Amino acid sequence: MPVIMVEGIPLSADQKRELVAILTKSASSIMNVSEQAFQVYIKENSRDNIGVGGILVSERNK
Amino acid sequence: MPVIMVEGIPLSADQKRELVAILTKSASSIMNVSEQAFQVYIKENSRDNIGVGGILVSERNK
Amino acid sequence: MPVIMVEGIPLSADQKRELVAILTKSASSIMNVSEQAFQVYIKENSRDNIGVGGILVSERNK
Amino acid sequence: MPVIMVEGIPLSADQKRELVAILTKSASSIMNVSEQAFQVYIKENSRDNIGVGGILVSERNK
Amino acid sequence: MPVIMVEGIPLSADQKRELVAILTKSASSIMNVSEQAFQVYIKENSRDNIGVGGILVSERNK
Amino acid sequence: MPVIMVEGIPLSADQKRELVAILTKSASSIMNVSEQAFQVYIKENSRDNIGVGGILVSERNK
Repeated sequence: MPVIMVEGIPLSADQKRELVAILTKSASSIMNVSEQAFQVYIKENSRDNIGVGGILVSERNK
Repeated sequence: MPVIMVEGIPLSADQKRELVAILTKSASSIMNVSEQAFQVYIKENSRDNIGVGGILVSERNK
Repeated sequence: MPVIMVEGIPLSADQKRELVAILTKSASSIMNVSEQAFQVYIKENSRDNIGVGGILVSERNK
Repeated sequence: MPVIMVEGIPLSADQKRELVAILTKSASSIMNVSEQAFQVYIKENSRDNIGVGGILVSERNK
Repeated sequence: MPVIMVEGIPLSADQKRELVAILTKSASSIMNVSEQAFQVYIKENSRDNIGVGGILVSERNK
Repeated sequence: MPVIMVEGIPLSADQKRELVAILTKSASSIMNVSEQAFQVYIKENSRDNIGVGGILVSERNK
Protein backbone atom coordinates (compact mmCIF):
# COMPACT_ATOMS: atom_id res chain seq x y z
CA MET A 1 0.00 0.00 0.00
CA PRO A 2 -0.30 2.47 -1.78
CA VAL A 3 -1.26 1.57 -5.31
CA ILE A 4 -0.89 3.86 -8.32
CA MET A 5 -2.87 3.15 -11.52
CA VAL A 6 -1.94 4.95 -14.74
CA GLU A 7 -4.56 4.82 -17.50
CA GLY A 8 -3.27 5.93 -20.89
CA ILE A 9 -2.23 4.91 -24.40
CA PRO A 10 0.47 2.30 -25.23
CA LEU A 11 4.02 3.09 -24.03
CA SER A 12 7.51 1.75 -24.77
CA ALA A 13 9.34 -0.55 -22.33
CA ASP A 14 11.66 2.34 -21.41
CA GLN A 15 8.74 4.68 -20.69
CA LYS A 16 7.11 2.08 -18.44
CA ARG A 17 10.36 1.40 -16.54
CA GLU A 18 10.92 5.15 -16.01
CA LEU A 19 7.31 5.84 -15.10
CA VAL A 20 7.24 3.11 -12.43
CA ALA A 21 10.55 4.32 -10.96
CA ILE A 22 9.76 8.05 -10.87
CA LEU A 23 6.12 7.82 -9.77
CA THR A 24 7.13 5.46 -6.94
CA LYS A 25 10.08 7.65 -5.87
CA SER A 26 8.15 10.93 -5.82
CA ALA A 27 4.99 9.51 -4.24
CA SER A 28 7.08 7.68 -1.64
CA SER A 29 8.80 10.87 -0.49
CA ILE A 30 5.58 12.92 -0.42
CA MET A 31 3.45 10.26 1.30
CA ASN A 32 6.23 9.15 3.72
CA VAL A 33 5.75 5.52 2.73
CA SER A 34 8.66 3.25 1.79
CA GLU A 35 9.13 2.63 -1.96
CA GLN A 36 8.91 -1.12 -1.27
CA ALA A 37 5.25 -0.76 -0.29
CA PHE A 38 4.24 0.73 -3.64
CA GLN A 39 2.54 -1.07 -6.51
CA VAL A 40 2.16 0.71 -9.87
CA TYR A 41 -0.11 -0.61 -12.65
CA ILE A 42 0.32 0.80 -16.14
CA LYS A 43 -2.87 0.34 -18.11
CA GLU A 44 -2.23 0.62 -21.85
CA ASN A 45 -5.51 1.32 -23.66
CA SER A 46 -5.92 1.21 -27.43
CA ARG A 47 -6.84 4.67 -28.87
CA ASP A 48 -10.07 2.99 -30.02
CA ASN A 49 -11.00 2.45 -26.39
CA ILE A 50 -10.53 5.96 -25.02
CA GLY A 51 -12.89 8.86 -25.59
CA VAL A 52 -11.94 12.49 -24.91
CA GLY A 53 -14.63 15.13 -25.34
CA GLY A 54 -17.02 12.47 -26.65
CA ILE A 55 -14.76 11.36 -29.53
CA LEU A 56 -12.52 8.29 -29.73
CA VAL A 57 -8.85 9.29 -29.43
CA SER A 58 -8.18 7.28 -32.62
CA GLU A 59 -10.62 9.54 -34.50
CA ARG A 60 -9.97 12.94 -32.97
CA ASN A 61 -7.88 14.38 -35.83
CA LYS A 62 -9.94 13.00 -38.72
CA MET B 1 -12.68 15.52 -15.11
CA PRO B 2 -14.95 13.53 -14.94
CA VAL B 3 -13.87 10.06 -16.00
CA ILE B 4 -16.23 7.24 -17.00
CA MET B 5 -14.98 3.64 -17.01
CA VAL B 6 -17.06 0.94 -18.71
CA GLU B 7 -16.14 -2.64 -17.81
CA GLY B 8 -17.69 -5.24 -20.11
CA ILE B 9 -17.14 -7.77 -22.90
CA PRO B 10 -15.55 -6.98 -26.31
CA LEU B 11 -17.42 -4.47 -28.51
CA SER B 12 -17.30 -3.42 -32.18
CA ALA B 13 -15.68 -0.15 -33.29
CA ASP B 14 -19.14 1.31 -33.96
CA GLN B 15 -20.39 0.38 -30.48
CA LYS B 16 -17.35 2.00 -28.87
CA ARG B 17 -17.73 5.19 -30.92
CA GLU B 18 -21.44 5.42 -30.04
CA LEU B 19 -20.90 4.57 -26.36
CA VAL B 20 -18.24 7.25 -25.93
CA ALA B 21 -20.43 9.86 -27.67
CA ILE B 22 -23.68 9.11 -25.85
CA LEU B 23 -22.27 8.54 -22.35
CA THR B 24 -20.31 11.80 -22.64
CA LYS B 25 -23.29 13.75 -23.96
CA SER B 26 -25.78 12.54 -21.35
CA ALA B 27 -23.37 12.74 -18.39
CA SER B 28 -22.26 16.20 -19.50
CA SER B 29 -25.81 17.57 -19.47
CA ILE B 30 -26.71 15.96 -16.12
CA MET B 31 -23.45 16.89 -14.35
CA ASN B 32 -23.26 20.41 -15.92
CA VAL B 33 -19.70 19.78 -17.05
CA SER B 34 -18.51 20.52 -20.59
CA GLU B 35 -18.16 17.48 -22.87
CA GLN B 36 -14.54 18.48 -23.48
CA ALA B 37 -13.67 17.70 -19.87
CA PHE B 38 -14.83 14.06 -20.11
CA GLN B 39 -12.65 11.02 -20.53
CA VAL B 40 -14.26 7.63 -21.21
CA TYR B 41 -12.34 4.34 -20.96
CA ILE B 42 -13.90 1.23 -22.49
CA LYS B 43 -12.46 -1.86 -20.85
CA GLU B 44 -13.02 -4.94 -23.02
CA ASN B 45 -12.65 -8.07 -20.87
CA SER B 46 -12.49 -11.60 -22.27
CA ARG B 47 -15.49 -13.73 -21.14
CA ASP B 48 -12.88 -15.95 -19.44
CA ASN B 49 -12.00 -13.05 -17.16
CA ILE B 50 -15.43 -12.08 -15.89
CA GLY B 51 -17.42 -13.99 -13.30
CA VAL B 52 -21.14 -13.44 -12.69
CA GLY B 53 -22.77 -15.33 -9.84
CA GLY B 54 -19.51 -17.19 -9.23
CA ILE B 55 -19.26 -18.63 -12.76
CA LEU B 56 -17.09 -17.45 -15.66
CA VAL B 57 -19.23 -15.70 -18.30
CA SER B 58 -17.59 -17.99 -20.91
CA GLU B 59 -18.99 -21.03 -19.05
CA ARG B 60 -22.41 -19.82 -17.88
CA ASN B 61 -24.49 -21.63 -20.51
CA LYS B 62 -22.57 -24.92 -20.58
CA MET C 1 -22.04 -7.28 -16.08
CA PRO C 2 -21.25 -4.60 -17.34
CA VAL C 3 -20.13 -2.10 -14.71
CA ILE C 4 -19.93 1.66 -15.24
CA MET C 5 -17.82 3.79 -12.86
CA VAL C 6 -18.21 7.57 -12.91
CA GLU C 7 -15.42 9.52 -11.19
CA GLY C 8 -16.25 13.18 -10.57
CA ILE C 9 -17.13 15.86 -8.02
CA PRO C 10 -20.11 15.68 -5.58
CA LEU C 11 -23.60 15.54 -7.15
CA SER C 12 -27.16 16.02 -5.91
CA ALA C 13 -29.50 13.07 -5.30
CA ASP C 14 -31.46 14.00 -8.45
CA GLN C 15 -28.32 14.10 -10.58
CA LYS C 16 -27.26 10.66 -9.31
CA ARG C 17 -30.70 9.16 -9.96
CA GLU C 18 -30.78 10.59 -13.48
CA LEU C 19 -27.17 9.62 -14.25
CA VAL C 20 -27.73 5.99 -13.20
CA ALA C 21 -30.94 5.78 -15.26
CA ILE C 22 -29.64 7.40 -18.45
CA LEU C 23 -26.16 5.80 -18.52
CA THR C 24 -27.75 2.37 -17.96
CA LYS C 25 -30.43 2.93 -20.63
CA SER C 26 -28.06 4.20 -23.32
CA ALA C 27 -25.27 1.70 -22.63
CA SER C 28 -27.80 -1.13 -22.51
CA SER C 29 -29.15 -0.35 -25.98
CA ILE C 30 -25.68 0.13 -27.52
CA MET C 31 -24.09 -2.94 -25.89
CA ASN C 32 -27.19 -5.17 -26.36
CA VAL C 33 -27.16 -6.13 -22.71
CA SER C 34 -30.26 -6.01 -20.52
CA GLU C 35 -30.51 -3.03 -18.16
CA GLN C 36 -30.88 -5.46 -15.26
CA ALA C 37 -27.30 -6.66 -15.74
CA PHE C 38 -25.82 -3.17 -15.29
CA GLN C 39 -24.16 -1.80 -12.16
CA VAL C 40 -23.26 1.90 -11.99
CA TYR C 41 -20.98 3.33 -9.27
CA ILE C 42 -20.92 7.09 -8.81
CA LYS C 43 -17.68 8.14 -7.15
CA GLU C 44 -17.95 11.58 -5.60
CA ASN C 45 -14.46 13.00 -5.02
CA SER C 46 -13.76 16.17 -3.02
CA ARG C 47 -12.26 18.95 -5.20
CA ASP C 48 -9.21 18.67 -2.92
CA ASN C 49 -8.67 15.14 -4.18
CA ILE C 50 -8.76 15.72 -7.93
CA GLY C 51 -5.98 17.28 -9.97
CA VAL C 52 -6.45 18.60 -13.51
CA GLY C 53 -3.41 19.87 -15.36
CA GLY C 54 -1.31 19.35 -12.22
CA ILE C 55 -3.45 21.62 -10.01
CA LEU C 56 -6.07 20.63 -7.43
CA VAL C 57 -9.58 21.39 -8.76
CA SER C 58 -10.25 23.24 -5.49
CA GLU C 59 -7.38 25.63 -6.31
CA ARG C 60 -7.68 26.03 -10.08
CA ASN C 61 -9.31 29.50 -10.07
CA LYS C 62 -7.26 31.06 -7.25
CA MET D 1 -23.60 -5.44 -6.71
CA PRO D 2 -20.95 -6.02 -5.32
CA VAL D 3 -18.04 -6.04 -7.75
CA ILE D 4 -14.63 -7.60 -7.06
CA MET D 5 -11.63 -6.59 -9.21
CA VAL D 6 -8.44 -8.66 -9.04
CA GLU D 7 -5.33 -7.00 -10.48
CA GLY D 8 -2.41 -9.40 -11.00
CA ILE D 9 -0.27 -11.29 -13.48
CA PRO D 10 -1.59 -13.75 -16.14
CA LEU D 11 -3.40 -16.83 -14.81
CA SER D 12 -4.51 -20.18 -16.27
CA ALA D 13 -8.16 -20.88 -17.16
CA ASP D 14 -8.43 -23.18 -14.12
CA GLN D 15 -7.06 -20.51 -11.78
CA LYS D 16 -9.55 -17.96 -13.11
CA ARG D 17 -12.49 -20.36 -12.76
CA GLU D 18 -11.48 -21.23 -9.20
CA LEU D 19 -10.77 -17.63 -8.22
CA VAL D 20 -14.17 -16.41 -9.44
CA ALA D 21 -15.96 -19.25 -7.62
CA ILE D 22 -14.14 -18.97 -4.29
CA LEU D 23 -13.99 -15.17 -4.05
CA THR D 24 -17.72 -14.98 -4.85
CA LYS D 25 -18.62 -17.72 -2.37
CA SER D 26 -16.61 -16.32 0.55
CA ALA D 27 -17.51 -12.67 -0.06
CA SER D 28 -21.17 -13.62 -0.47
CA SER D 29 -21.31 -15.33 2.94
CA ILE D 30 -19.42 -12.52 4.72
CA MET D 31 -21.31 -9.65 3.08
CA ASN D 32 -24.74 -11.41 3.26
CA VAL D 33 -25.34 -10.78 -0.43
CA SER D 34 -26.49 -13.50 -2.82
CA GLU D 35 -23.80 -14.99 -5.07
CA GLN D 36 -25.93 -14.09 -8.09
CA ALA D 37 -25.40 -10.39 -7.40
CA PHE D 38 -21.59 -10.63 -7.62
CA GLN D 39 -19.43 -9.66 -10.57
CA VAL D 40 -15.71 -10.53 -10.52
CA TYR D 41 -13.23 -9.05 -13.01
CA ILE D 42 -9.82 -10.68 -13.33
CA LYS D 43 -7.32 -8.20 -14.71
CA GLU D 44 -4.27 -9.96 -16.14
CA ASN D 45 -1.38 -7.49 -16.41
CA SER D 46 1.88 -8.21 -18.22
CA ARG D 47 4.89 -8.22 -15.85
CA ASP D 48 6.17 -5.29 -17.93
CA ASN D 49 3.19 -3.26 -16.76
CA ILE D 50 3.42 -3.75 -13.00
CA GLY D 51 5.93 -2.07 -10.73
CA VAL D 52 6.64 -3.22 -7.17
CA GLY D 53 9.03 -1.15 -5.08
CA GLY D 54 9.72 1.06 -8.11
CA ILE D 55 10.93 -1.79 -10.35
CA LEU D 56 9.04 -3.57 -13.13
CA VAL D 57 8.04 -7.09 -12.01
CA SER D 58 9.60 -8.40 -15.26
CA GLU D 59 12.97 -6.95 -14.14
CA ARG D 60 12.95 -7.56 -10.41
CA ASN D 61 15.31 -10.58 -10.38
CA LYS D 62 17.79 -9.33 -12.99
CA MET E 1 0.98 -7.45 -6.14
CA PRO E 2 -1.80 -8.57 -6.55
CA VAL E 3 -4.47 -6.06 -5.56
CA ILE E 4 -8.10 -6.92 -4.83
CA MET E 5 -10.75 -4.16 -4.88
CA VAL E 6 -14.19 -4.86 -3.44
CA GLU E 7 -16.92 -2.36 -4.42
CA GLY E 8 -20.09 -2.66 -2.33
CA ILE E 9 -22.28 -1.14 0.37
CA PRO E 10 -21.09 -0.21 3.91
CA LEU E 11 -19.85 -3.12 6.08
CA SER E 12 -19.11 -3.65 9.78
CA ALA E 13 -15.53 -3.74 11.13
CA ASP E 14 -15.85 -7.52 11.62
CA GLN E 15 -17.01 -8.05 8.04
CA LYS E 16 -14.09 -6.01 6.70
CA ARG E 17 -11.56 -7.90 8.84
CA GLU E 18 -12.96 -11.26 7.74
CA LEU E 19 -13.24 -10.25 4.09
CA VAL E 20 -9.59 -9.08 3.92
CA ALA E 21 -8.39 -12.28 5.61
CA ILE E 22 -10.42 -14.77 3.58
CA LEU E 23 -10.05 -13.10 0.15
CA THR E 24 -6.28 -12.86 0.69
CA LYS E 25 -5.98 -16.45 1.90
CA SER E 26 -8.01 -18.00 -0.93
CA ALA E 27 -6.55 -15.84 -3.71
CA SER E 28 -3.04 -16.47 -2.38
CA SER E 29 -3.42 -20.25 -2.59
CA ILE E 30 -5.05 -20.17 -6.07
CA MET E 31 -2.62 -17.62 -7.57
CA ASN E 32 0.48 -19.12 -5.85
CA VAL E 33 1.48 -15.72 -4.51
CA SER E 34 2.42 -15.14 -0.88
CA GLU E 35 -0.28 -13.54 1.30
CA GLN E 36 2.20 -10.79 2.20
CA ALA E 37 2.16 -9.50 -1.37
CA PHE E 38 -1.61 -8.90 -1.36
CA GLN E 39 -3.38 -5.58 -0.92
CA VAL E 40 -7.16 -5.51 -0.49
CA TYR E 41 -9.21 -2.29 -0.74
CA ILE E 42 -12.77 -2.34 0.55
CA LYS E 43 -14.78 0.42 -1.10
CA GLU E 44 -17.91 1.25 0.88
CA ASN E 45 -20.38 3.07 -1.38
CA SER E 46 -23.54 4.76 -0.10
CA ARG E 47 -26.71 3.12 -1.52
CA ASP E 48 -27.40 6.52 -3.13
CA ASN E 49 -24.27 6.08 -5.22
CA ILE E 50 -24.87 2.63 -6.68
CA GLY E 51 -27.30 1.85 -9.48
CA VAL E 52 -28.47 -1.69 -10.30
CA GLY E 53 -30.70 -2.16 -13.33
CA GLY E 54 -30.82 1.62 -13.80
CA ILE E 55 -32.23 2.34 -10.32
CA LEU E 56 -30.39 3.62 -7.24
CA VAL E 57 -29.98 0.81 -4.69
CA SER E 58 -31.45 3.19 -2.06
CA GLU E 59 -34.65 3.41 -4.14
CA ARG E 60 -35.04 -0.12 -5.47
CA ASN E 61 -37.78 -1.26 -3.07
CA LYS E 62 -39.85 1.94 -3.03
CA MET F 1 -6.12 11.50 -20.95
CA PRO F 2 -4.15 10.05 -19.14
CA VAL F 3 -5.62 9.45 -15.69
CA ILE F 4 -3.61 8.61 -12.58
CA MET F 5 -5.35 7.05 -9.55
CA VAL F 6 -3.53 6.92 -6.21
CA GLU F 7 -5.03 4.55 -3.64
CA GLY F 8 -3.68 5.04 -0.12
CA ILE F 9 -4.36 6.30 3.40
CA PRO F 10 -5.53 9.85 4.29
CA LEU F 11 -3.14 12.70 3.37
CA SER F 12 -2.81 16.39 4.28
CA ALA F 13 -3.86 19.16 1.87
CA ASP F 14 -0.18 19.95 1.23
CA GLN F 15 0.63 16.33 0.41
CA LYS F 16 -2.28 16.15 -2.04
CA ARG F 17 -1.28 19.41 -3.75
CA GLU F 18 2.33 18.25 -4.08
CA LEU F 19 1.39 14.74 -5.21
CA VAL F 20 -0.90 16.04 -7.97
CA ALA F 21 1.76 18.49 -9.18
CA ILE F 22 4.73 16.11 -9.16
CA LEU F 23 2.96 13.00 -10.53
CA THR F 24 1.52 15.11 -13.36
CA LYS F 25 4.85 16.78 -14.14
CA SER F 26 6.91 13.57 -14.19
CA ALA F 27 4.33 11.46 -16.03
CA SER F 28 3.82 14.26 -18.56
CA SER F 29 7.51 14.38 -19.47
CA ILE F 30 7.88 10.57 -19.68
CA MET F 31 4.66 9.97 -21.62
CA ASN F 32 5.09 13.05 -23.90
CA VAL F 33 1.59 14.24 -23.08
CA SER F 34 0.82 17.81 -22.05
CA GLU F 35 0.21 18.36 -18.32
CA GLN F 36 -3.16 19.89 -19.18
CA ALA F 37 -4.43 16.52 -20.38
CA PHE F 38 -3.78 14.80 -17.03
CA GLN F 39 -6.33 13.99 -14.36
CA VAL F 40 -5.15 12.70 -10.97
CA TYR F 41 -7.53 11.18 -8.40
CA ILE F 42 -6.31 10.76 -4.84
CA LYS F 43 -8.30 8.07 -3.09
CA GLU F 44 -8.01 8.35 0.68
CA ASN F 45 -8.99 5.03 2.28
CA SER F 46 -9.52 4.56 6.02
CA ARG F 47 -6.97 2.12 7.54
CA ASP F 48 -9.99 -0.05 8.41
CA ASN F 49 -10.64 -0.47 4.69
CA ILE F 50 -7.23 -1.60 3.50
CA GLY F 51 -5.74 -5.04 4.02
CA VAL F 52 -2.05 -5.83 3.56
CA GLY F 53 -0.94 -9.43 3.92
CA GLY F 54 -4.48 -10.39 4.93
CA ILE F 55 -4.63 -8.01 7.92
CA LEU F 56 -6.37 -4.63 8.16
CA VAL F 57 -3.78 -1.81 8.14
CA SER F 58 -5.50 -0.43 11.28
CA GLU F 59 -4.71 -3.71 13.09
CA ARG F 60 -1.28 -4.60 11.74
CA ASN F 61 0.75 -3.52 14.79
CA LYS F 62 -1.62 -4.81 17.49
